[in-house]
Amino acid sequence: MRKRNNKASQKPRRRATADDDRKITALNLKPEELTPEMTSYFAKCEEKLGFIPNVLKAYVFDMAKLSAFVAMYNDLMLAPSGLSKLEREMIAVAVSAHNRCYYCLVAHGAAVRQLSGDPPLGELMVMNYRAARLSPRERAMLDFAVKLTAEPWLVEEDDRARLRGAGFSDRDIWDIAAVAGFFNMTNRIASATDMRPNSVYHGQAR
Amino acid sequence: MRKRNNKASQKPRRRATADDDRKITALNLKPEELTPEMTSYFAKCEEKLGFIPNVLKAYVFDMAKLSAFVAMYNDLMLAPSGLSKLEREMIAVAVSAHNRCYYCLVAHGAAVRQLSGDPPLGELMVMNYRAARLSPRERAMLDFAVKLTAEPWLVEEDDRARLRGAGFSDRDIWDIAAVAGFFNMTNRIASATDMRPNSVYHGQAR
Amino acid sequence: MRKRNNKASQKPRRRATADDDRKITALNLKPEELTPEMTSYFAKCEEKLGFIPNVLKAYVFDMAKLSAFVAMYNDLMLAPSGLSKLEREMIAVAVSAHNRCYYCLVAHGAAVRQLSGDPPLGELMVMNYRAARLSPRERAMLDFAVKLTAEPWLVEEDDRARLRGAGFSDRDIWDIAAVAGFFNMTNRIASATDMRPNSVYHGQAR
Amino acid sequence: MRKRNNKASQKPRRRATADDDRKITALNLKPEELTPEMTSYFAKCEEKLGFIPNVLKAYVFDMAKLSAFVAMYNDLMLAPSGLSKLEREMIAVAVSAHNRCYYCLVAHGAAVRQLSGDPPLGELMVMNYRAARLSPRERAMLDFAVKLTAEPWLVEEDDRARLRGAGFSDRDIWDIAAVAGFFNMTNRIASATDMRPNSVYHGQAR
Amino acid sequence: MRKRNNKASQKPRRRATADDDRKITALNLKPEELTPEMTSYFAKCEEKLGFIPNVLKAYVFDMAKLSAFVAMYNDLMLAPSGLSKLEREMIAVAVSAHNRCYYCLVAHGAAVRQLSGDPPLGELMVMNYRAARLSPRERAMLDFAVKLTAEPWLVEEDDRARLRGAGFSDRDIWDIAAVAGFFNMTNRIASATDMRPNSVYHGQAR
Amino acid sequence: MRKRNNKASQKPRRRATADDDRKITALNLKPEELTPEMTSYFAKCEEKLGFIPNVLKAYVFDMAKLSAFVAMYNDLMLAPSGLSKLEREMIAVAVSAHNRCYYCLVAHGAAVRQLSGDPPLGELMVMNYRAARLSPRERAMLDFAVKLTAEPWLVEEDDRARLRGAGFSDRDIWDIAAVAGFFNMTNRIASATDMRPNSVYHGQAR
Repeated sequence: MRKRNNKASQKPRRRATADDDRKITALNLKPEELTPEMTSYFAKCEEKLGFIPNVLKAYVFDMAKLSAFVAMYNDLMLAPSGLSKLEREMIAVAVSAHNRCYYCLVAHGAAVRQLSGDPPLGELMVMNYRAARLSPRERAMLDFAVKLTAEPWLVEEDDRARLRGAGFSDRDIWDIAAVAGFFNMTNRIASATDMRPNSVYHGQAR
Repeated sequence: MRKRNNKASQKPRRRATADDDRKITALNLKPEELTPEMTSYFAKCEEKLGFIPNVLKAYVFDMAKLSAFVAMYNDLMLAPSGLSKLEREMIAVAVSAHNRCYYCLVAHGAAVRQLSGDPPLGELMVMNYRAARLSPRERAMLDFAVKLTAEPWLVEEDDRARLRGAGFSDRDIWDIAAVAGFFNMTNRIASATDMRPNSVYHGQAR
Repeated sequence: MRKRNNKASQKPRRRATADDDRKITALNLKPEELTPEMTSYFAKCEEKLGFIPNVLKAYVFDMAKLSAFVAMYNDLMLAPSGLSKLEREMIAVAVSAHNRCYYCLVAHGAAVRQLSGDPPLGELMVMNYRAARLSPRERAMLDFAVKLTAEPWLVEEDDRARLRGAGFSDRDIWDIAAVAGFFNMTNRIASATDMRPNSVYHGQAR
Repeated sequence: MRKRNNKASQKPRRRATADDDRKITALNLKPEELTPEMTSYFAKCEEKLGFIPNVLKAYVFDMAKLSAFVAMYNDLMLAPSGLSKLEREMIAVAVSAHNRCYYCLVAHGAAVRQLSGDPPLGELMVMNYRAARLSPRERAMLDFAVKLTAEPWLVEEDDRARLRGAGFSDRDIWDIAAVAGFFNMTNRIASATDMRPNSVYHGQAR
Repeated sequence: MRKRNNKASQKPRRRATADDDRKITALNLKPEELTPEMTSYFAKCEEKLGFIPNVLKAYVFDMAKLSAFVAMYNDLMLAPSGLSKLEREMIAVAVSAHNRCYYCLVAHGAAVRQLSGDPPLGELMVMNYRAARLSPRERAMLDFAVKLTAEPWLVEEDDRARLRGAGFSDRDIWDIAAVAGFFNMTNRIASATDMRPNSVYHGQAR
Repeated sequence: MRKRNNKASQKPRRRATADDDRKITALNLKPEELTPEMTSYFAKCEEKLGFIPNVLKAYVFDMAKLSAFVAMYNDLMLAPSGLSKLEREMIAVAVSAHNRCYYCLVAHGAAVRQLSGDPPLGELMVMNYRAARLSPRERAMLDFAVKLTAEPWLVEEDDRARLRGAGFSDRDIWDIAAVAGFFNMTNRIASATDMRPNSVYHGQAR
């Protein structure tokens, strides 16, 4: 049996894996000067979140790419949708769990914990969404998103019919597909570049 | 043995699979009015391509999403890069072949045929890029893109080192990852919505 | 946006991938003299097709093997059967697509285009047969053939029952299995030897 | 601990799984009259083996198919080749083990036991050829055959080079590919039709 | 056609693969002295089986590990349970077949042959349990055990419901899971150490 | 952008996923009376950990099974070994991550956080051990354990040689295999029974 938790803090730290001490990605890319629009966006991040998410810093080598990423991200995750913000984050994490993407699991796992006020739910999305107690709507949504991630070539009308049967509109189906698709993109950019999440996420909403 | 090609045209057509006769996706989404920016962009497509790619029409239900998609697509595929336009299209098709995405294989297979002036190269990207006679640079690029597609969780420093060994800069590595990532997104949106390509692609550059 | 098709012909050719300029397989095998039977068969190919399919040339190192291959091929693909010739070619391509066999996809993709008079149908068989608009009979046939290709150990009575439910006789089931099995053989011989298709297939029935 | 073997014979038989009591396949196919050539071939089987292998009986519904099968089988497995008969049977079993084909594992597992005089070798081919003590030549041959079975799209020049490095000629490479390909065909026909092996194989060469 | 079985014994032996001539595992581990409890257990094995199973000899380097293994094994496989001993051995072999574990397939394949008095049943469990004529109860049990082996993350309430529908109690479900789990452990220890079975198993209950 | 963490606590809780409010497994199994040995062991757990791990409670329906499990667990994870306790827990989590086992990831993820004093290390083991900054020894150990989990049939002498090259003794190799094997067992028992972890783990050592 392991010792109680409260003694753990007395142990010497094994090694520094804190992600903040390190480069954000494995690539050496020279930063561009932030555009006024992006300067203001980064300031808003600092104000609302208390930090700049590392994925944004990873993109500062090219303002056109940064702007396009921010525009798509904010539209997908924050614009009005038949999917709640929590539902969109649940998709993000279930997709990233299939793809075993460290960056996205850390950052969006924290988001699920925060938005739900239910820390184990964040863990369940990371570990195996099938073990979570989900509503039929949530389960249909995540089953679709994960099948689309794992075997997109098998997605057919029956799959869309199951979503409609769970109460989703055609517009909702687009949004589920678009969020699942987006994280299939970012998971791969993060894995390809060894992108490291801000350490602050680890302790959020535990 | 089958009859010669020139008799085939006398056969009655088996059925109409022509994609233009049908809805562009399986979803019923009400079009929004095009913004002036998008009106002008669509006009430019008509002028340069002779048609509006169906993926753009699929997005007209929401101008914010259409704009974000166009901005990201044009930056990735057309902006200056260490990768040629043909190389980016080869990535697009090799990724889409792994994901067996009908829309993207038809549209971007045509692009590879056009940009290369080498129709069998387009077929090879669709069927099995490993059977193509590729330069070491091209092969390294596609091996990275397809591994990132199939098993992103296995991509590590050794994989980046192989790209550097084949002459790619860190900026090029980002671009390979970003193009591969992007088609992992669009393949899934297309499969989720049963998006159908413009028929015109089939005959292009054969 | 890419330039219009009609300008592509002005581009310098990137490289010669034309399959006819090259050896038919990666193996150096000394041709035997054709038997009279095979001489006559080759003459019939020239007459009806306008060329000798490369797979036949690949076998000329051994007349016993060539004869056995031709006998089995012609029986399976051309003899009377409850399956139409087009149906048999659709199985050939769907199986070869699972196995990503360049030779068979090029040669039999052309056959599907020719026999159907529907070029996109050939592309659909190559790219993802599930995206095609198929009759329930065709779909059941291809689902069986592809499951038999991908996971033969899972094929059971339920699978045969589905074929019978779609109108196939027991004799038809044998023929579906035999055609699917045959292309699982030839796909592997072609891949093992890097067999290259005749260039002429690429332009057929587009 | 289980009781000793010699008491097992006193136990009542649990159920009749003896394959001879049953139909040879799950398909109802009306037998044709044997051609004189096949009548004589079947007589030779009876004389040399003591029985007619069920696969041959499964084909008696169509003499053209039976003849083509027999011609190809006998050429591949019995004709002169750089591969010994045992080596060809080892490929047959290793391929059939990947495909988990009951018929072929029973029939060709017995052949490996007989031809090698080494019963455990037959078991090893059935269970996991990687656990067998093989010569480098045998291992290279089986690695090629099983890769070609599992992922034919990945077989490339490096794989052929490994065979050449293990002493195989180009003609031998063809034969390895052809035998592996053939069992990928027959495994699927056997699985598709639920073909049952002759019971006599089970006790052979134990 | 191969020669009759009775001539095989005249062939010179190809090589000695007899497992008894060799080390039991690939690891050099110094044996400890048997405890009195284990001395007596080994004596009982000799008396009842006629030999000491190699897995027990593999553990003699550490009496604590040997005792824990024996306690768990005997409880699972021999203690009273709603599952018969044969059913537990069938699970053992079907799981080991998925994992292609030579040791466990040889040892427990023999057990299925003995306990059932039906040698082909043992072969079917090794080769493909889906090809066996099983009762609905047996089939449900093995489907659960093999799904739990292949994709444990997909096992859910529906799977347990199917077992209950086939007549299994909750306690039986535990036992199925525990036996399947146990062989997922021992398969891996055997594969990791290249554990070799006693030769005597090969000829048992044929 | 999401709101700051400190506001999250004001949100109403979405739903109760707290694992303590629920049955420990999906099975209804009647508890037996604890033996004196197990009464004392449970008391020791309460004293040292502050709670009884749910896996132990799941076993109270059968004292023989509980004792055997505890004996094997304590020997593997706590007895002297060339592997540190942290290394054994890292194996436990990397294996459980492959198998996506909620119970084991929660319980042993907490153990890695505690034993290492490095919370992100626990997350890395859960999410993708390949993204962690590991010593060559740790990486070799986890690569072996995860290969043994995913494809045990491919583990061979080369894999053992890599462990020896990283400084592991033959006894250490046994211990790596035994710990990896053990969690392949418990992952499956937990998944088969829907075992739920104690809630207290979620907040430990964050």
